[in-house]
Amino acid sequence: MVGRESASRPLHTVRTDDAVRILQPESHRKGAAVVASTLDLLPGHAPARLVVLVSGSGTNLQALLDASRDPAYGARVVAVGADRDAIQGLARAEGAGVPTFVHRVKDHPDRRAWDLAIRDTVAGYEPDLVVSAGFMKLLGPDFLAAFPGRVVNTHPALLPSFPGMHAARDALAYGVKVTGCTLFAVTEGVDDGPVIAQSAVPVEADDDENSLHERIKVAERALLVDYVGRMARGGWTIDAERKVTVK
Amino acid sequence: MVGRESASRPLHTVRTDDAVRILQPESHRKGAAVVASTLDLLPGHAPARLVVLVSGSGTNLQALLDASRDPAYGARVVAVGADRDAIQGLARAEGAGVPTFVHRVKDHPDRRAWDLAIRDTVAGYEPDLVVSAGFMKLLGPDFLAAFPGRVVNTHPALLPSFPGMHAARDALAYGVKVTGCTLFAVTEGVDDGPVIAQSAVPVEADDDENSLHERIKVAERALLVDYVGRMARGGWTIDAERKVTVK
Repeated sequence: MVGRESASRPLHTVRTDDAVRILQPESHRKGAAVVASTLDLLPGHAPARLVVLVSGSGTNLQALLDASRDPAYGARVVAVGADRDAIQGLARAEGAGVPTFVHRVKDHPDRRAWDLAIRDTVAGYEPDLVVSAGFMKLLGPDFLAAFPGRVVNTHPALLPSFPGMHAARDALAYGVKVTGCTLFAVTEGVDDGPVIAQSAVPVEADDDENSLHERIKVAERALLVDYVGRMARGGWTIDAERKVTVK
Repeated sequence: MVGRESASRPLHTVRTDDAVRILQPESHRKGAAVVASTLDLLPGHAPARLVVLVSGSGTNLQALLDASRDPAYGARVVAVGADRDAIQGLARAEGAGVPTFVHRVKDHPDRRAWDLAIRDTVAGYEPDLVVSAGFMKLLGPDFLAAFPGRVVNTHPALLPSFPGMHAARDALAYGVKVTGCTLFAVTEGVDDGPVIAQSAVPVEADDDENSLHERIKVAERALLVDYVGRMARGGWTIDAERKVTVK
């Protein structure tokens, strides 16, 4: 056992191949027997180290920066990475004195080389959690295998409803009366990783895509800040059936 | 225009073929141009006439019977139908002095003959709304074409998540943290008709299928009673994009 009070702990408490097997959505869907034990994920540092990935305005990053000003929050942003230059998210990080890095896909020979580069840069910051906060690229298998169960993302719908790029539009098109947002552990699938937390948001009669998406984003930001803090302070588990428990 | 104050009004305010076209989930999914105008559905009677279909214990039927004791509710159960004999749902109806009928599939030469028989019996009660309340058979196209937009059902999940017979089990297997229930207008598809109302229900850490389903059923019953009353009192519309507005 690893002492919870220690300020620095080994990052991974399970073998990476077991972790990857647990997180495969295919095992889940096919009901395959998953023999690996529960992923028991502890923050390796106190406060927990967050690397945040952004592609745009960085409003979720700002919410994490704001929350982490309180030492009781239990986490701090140690680096912010982007897939493009000159975005507001990077400016926010610089304004807060947080180191930044940029890896553009086009600066690498292929997508896998990009994935390895971003993996190595992120790993250098020894993150307890990697937060995809409006990051517009899919992270590849090499990246994800390096941080099993530790890469989280939000989605503006109650998954498994309305995955993909147009969740608010799709929710309106279907005509649902309740939608919401999801915090999930990123896997190689699109928006189908283990669900960490969800929050419901009503659809109003006069909503258009913009008004609905704005309402969801408010809930999404609150959910992200709340649960990243809880995970940072107490750890979390992902069991062999992909059930997530935040302690 | 049909006067809203009249105690008896024509049942359908649009042509049936237009209505069926609006309600086809296929048109919705394929994004096909739907030229029919909005279905504008008014209760044809005051209080509105409900025919309730059951296959089991009839707890949702009981909730509607209880609510309709208050004249302000605006609806009353005029008949209860079942696809099998000797169930508690029928006993509840008889206890409340409500006429009952039974059409068993096996008593008819084929499924279509059953569908036509149940259609004709239900039509004889001149319903403003047909409520499928734990009715375990899929209603066929002949039945549905007779009551376009007026057949409602509940589902123990936030559709489009977890359609089908095992919604609570499927929600637990996926690992969602929020599920719920849906009141929808029945179409020929399975659990994919226009959504009338939804209510969110939390998944608790120690839930099993039974505890979760029981929590959902409480919310489902409240949603059904609330919205059947609203529809009965004020009417509802289903627009060409399947958006439902309860007045």
